[in-house]
Amino acid sequence: MASLITPDQFSANQDAEALRKACQGWGTNEKVIISILSHRSATQRKEIRVAYEQLYQEDLLKRLESELSGDFERAVYRWTLDPADRDAVLANLAIKKPDETDYNVIIEISSVRCPEELLAVRKAYQLRYRCSLEEDLAQHTAGDIRKLLVALVTAYRYDGNEINEKLASSEANILHDAIKEKCFNHEEIIRILSTRSKTQLMATFNKYRDDHGSSISKNLLGDGTSNFQKALHVAIRCLNDPKKYFEKVVTKNSCVILSLLETIPSQTNILSLIFCVKVLRNAIIGTGTDENALTRVIVTRAERDLRDIMVVYYKKNSVPLEQAVAQETSGDYKTFLLTLLGKN
Amino acid sequence: MASLITPDQFSANQDAEALRKACQGWGTNEKVIISILSHRSATQRKEIRVAYEQLYQEDLLKRLESELSGDFERAVYRWTLDPADRDAVLANLAIKKPDETDYNVIIEISSVRCPEELLAVRKAYQLRYRCSLEEDLAQHTAGDIRKLLVALVTAYRYDGNEINEKLASSEANILHDAIKEKCFNHEEIIRILSTRSKTQLMATFNKYRDDHGSSISKNLLGDGTSNFQKALHVAIRCLNDPKKYFEKVVTKNSCVILSLLETIPSQTNILSLIFCVKVLRNAIIGTGTDENALTRVIVTRAERDLRDIMVVYYKKNSVPLEQAVAQETSGDYKTFLLTLLGKN
Repeated sequence: MASLITPDQFSANQDAEALRKACQGWGTNEKVIISILSHRSATQRKEIRVAYEQLYQEDLLKRLESELSGDFERAVYRWTLDPADRDAVLANLAIKKPDETDYNVIIEISSVRCPEELLAVRKAYQLRYRCSLEEDLAQHTAGDIRKLLVALVTAYRYDGNEINEKLASSEANILHDAIKEKCFNHEEIIRILSTRSKTQLMATFNKYRDDHGSSISKNLLGDGTSNFQKALHVAIRCLNDPKKYFEKVVTKNSCVILSLLETIPSQTNILSLIFCVKVLRNAIIGTGTDENALTRVIVTRAERDLRDIMVVYYKKNSVPLEQAVAQETSGDYKTFLLTLLGKN
Repeated sequence: MASLITPDQFSANQDAEALRKACQGWGTNEKVIISILSHRSATQRKEIRVAYEQLYQEDLLKRLESELSGDFERAVYRWTLDPADRDAVLANLAIKKPDETDYNVIIEISSVRCPEELLAVRKAYQLRYRCSLEEDLAQHTAGDIRKLLVALVTAYRYDGNEINEKLASSEANILHDAIKEKCFNHEEIIRILSTRSKTQLMATFNKYRDDHGSSISKNLLGDGTSNFQKALHVAIRCLNDPKKYFEKVVTKNSCVILSLLETIPSQTNILSLIFCVKVLRNAIIGTGTDENALTRVIVTRAERDLRDIMVVYYKKNSVPLEQAVAQETSGDYKTFLLTLLGKN
């Protein structure tokens, strides 16, 4: 059950006008911004953005970015973005990380999303950054990892359920031979992983396990595992069984997991509840608060199952989530999160 | 001016019913098929296909394929296909050529089409062949040529007009250095050609010419030019200036040129007229008739400028095109082509 409370009556134009007023003149009226945005569904938020753009020839998100700051800004920003847009922002942040591109984010987005969703992320990326996702990715990476990541990101896989058993068998052998010879960067591995449909790949991975005695993901790791091997490993797990992948990677470090969980239909229930509660617990307990993780869970789940998450959280921690959040946060950020948690 | 004559009144359902009747029972009524399809615009043909599918849960094109044969079948088939569908069929034929993939067709489709059109071809390919275009392409090619072709086909380029001068300059140098060292398969060449927007690439190619004294396409060729170099050469010319490319490649062998010409706005006039007349002349004159080329010109131009083509043809050959076509063809195929030429 969602924790979000939306009004019976809604006018995108009226909301856009009120938000404009809240941003104009001396100081910003954060109370108004919170009272509107934290009570609107994703569809309504989208309509408000369109109305605002039409009325004032200005991007509402950019305006909010310049008016707000800190954790509050980031929370409002994430809340107002579409899922494809959010992925585009996450991908861009991952590519332009100062030290090194965060491969896992790119692999998760490109391998867990269905073909049409990935395409929507690529479109959103172009609209936002005025260049293509693969263009930025290819420029900021090199060598084998570039070959793999660009191939995964540019894939527009067939989405049907047909399986070609013969092909699965022959390609399982190709994969096995390449891995056995420790030729992990073999171009056939990249070809198979980046062009075959997910259903076909699952058949190939099953055939691999049946014919060769152990799973491909196990065979990939070993002593002195390279970054490229690790990337292959993540890609195979995301393509094969995202549910299992996410079960094991219950860590607050993977910033796309939550947003990805939203799109796995079978995931909407108990697994994602437990996962969210773990992330929240990690974010709240310990020295300092992980605002990033806290925002992520609340913002991505408020419209879905945050009320259920709150029930599970209370059972596991004997403290109401609202109370924990109120203790760890302050100011507009606190008000915003508590409103999303259902406080009126 | 188009030569196609369409009726004032049109009902997709009535047409679908009449076509169904023409295909049922003993023998096929080709006259009815011609009288309907050769008097309908692209939009109307599409509506008829949709209506037919809804009424009879059957693909009209597949039915026509099984009822008709020879040149007539191919002409009706091409006439009834959407442009994206036509490209998908051409790409598939090129990939599955018995001897070797016809690289030029793939390069022309992927490099001349705008990003959204290429995407439409990829979607049409999946719908038709139940696998992705890149999947088939990657399976039937290998090595450097595969790297280049798959990268071109999977590109979803940014379509904006911004130019980054600094980037153009640095990437012109990267290209020049790689070509100077005869390292044609350098991964940076493929990265630049397959990810940058067309506007940016034009700036880069101009910068190359200005800074290094000769054009990149000239620098690519030389003694012992490899197939890979030739493929790079075609890609660069298609990306840089498709008009110039098509002017030089006036040959009846390139089976996509005509269909591609349709999509170059500045091309709709005199150049494409002259080109079409040349193709027609080549197809008709000489030993035997090139039905493939004949069909292609008539089918792709009937709705655009076939009447103008007929005028130019008469000026250049002193024989009316209708008369030449009537002499070289026979049966239903002849009737179909002459109807598209405007004969009532």
